[in-house]
Amino acid sequence: MATEKITLTPVGFVKTKAVGREVRHRSTVSEIIFRGKLAEALDGIEDFSHLFVVFWMNKISKEERKTMKVHPRGRKDMPLLGVFATRTPFRPNPIGLTLVELLKVERNVLTVRGLDAFDGTPVLDIKPFDYWDTVEAATVPEWWRKLEKERSEKRELSE
Amino acid sequence: MATEKITLTPVGFVKTKAVGREVRHRSTVSEIIFRGKLAEALDGIEDFSHLFVVFWMNKISKEERKTMKVHPRGRKDMPLLGVFATRTPFRPNPIGLTLVELLKVERNVLTVRGLDAFDGTPVLDIKPFDYWDTVEAATVPEWWRKLEKERSEKRELSE
Repeated sequence: MATEKITLTPVGFVKTKAVGREVRHRSTVSEIIFRGKLAEALDGIEDFSHLFVVFWMNKISKEERKTMKVHPRGRKDMPLLGVFATRTPFRPNPIGLTLVELLKVERNVLTVRGLDAFDGTPVLDIKPFDYWDTVEAATVPEWWRKLEKERSEKRELSE
Repeated sequence: MATEKITLTPVGFVKTKAVGREVRHRSTVSEIIFRGKLAEALDGIEDFSHLFVVFWMNKISKEERKTMKVHPRGRKDMPLLGVFATRTPFRPNPIGLTLVELLKVERNVLTVRGLDAFDGTPVLDIKPFDYWDTVEAATVPEWWRKLEKERSEKRELSE
């Protein structure tokens, strides 16, 4: 099987004041600064409320990219799973994919809420969210529902 | 702004008998053949019903990647929009993102339904679909709703 290499140039970068764990808060507001000459490629994006951001997790090392199995969120009480069965950043191509809310468009800068990417992260592409991107009755594993339940309970406690 | 290049190696390839327009049918069944040594990275994927496939649209030329504006689906009666406001394959980094149904997992081969990628397309990553990937009340533009309405009417006629 041919495994020729693919070369990409970022279309822009993430700008955020969030650091460390703050980056994962759903309320975090960030900017995506596109290369200036791409401003016109954003025309019309303002009519969508949500976008998928496709980004490159550039802090992941060459060694980490060789990871085959992980416990979800590092939790040893969770099953040991293949990286493709999780959203871990440790994967052969550390591409991030996050659904964000679009708050503002100004020339080559998008302001978005909910992007879990560090300051300086290269952005590869964005995709406007539409109704082909979702499914009403999706199945997720038991471990996923358990982690999600814990997360929402923790959120209630902190409110 | 630094625009250092990013290099990726495909994790696998699409195998499909669909050609031309068939590729866009939601009922199209394809295989994703992962590199053999990545088989264990798929462990646990079978507990998800749906996945996002992130792929590289390798038929798009260097010139086509410079496209800034398009009419959605080439329709001149639709507004002229920035490529990022559409899902056109003509974009700076021709990355495809499609939600598919997972039908079968056999070692390093996933069988999926609804992947609009040609035979031989390099796959960059897959992401299991979970409830963070969707939003209940998303806004889409008027032109999107119009195209979608036409599509569903056409589908009804052909049934």
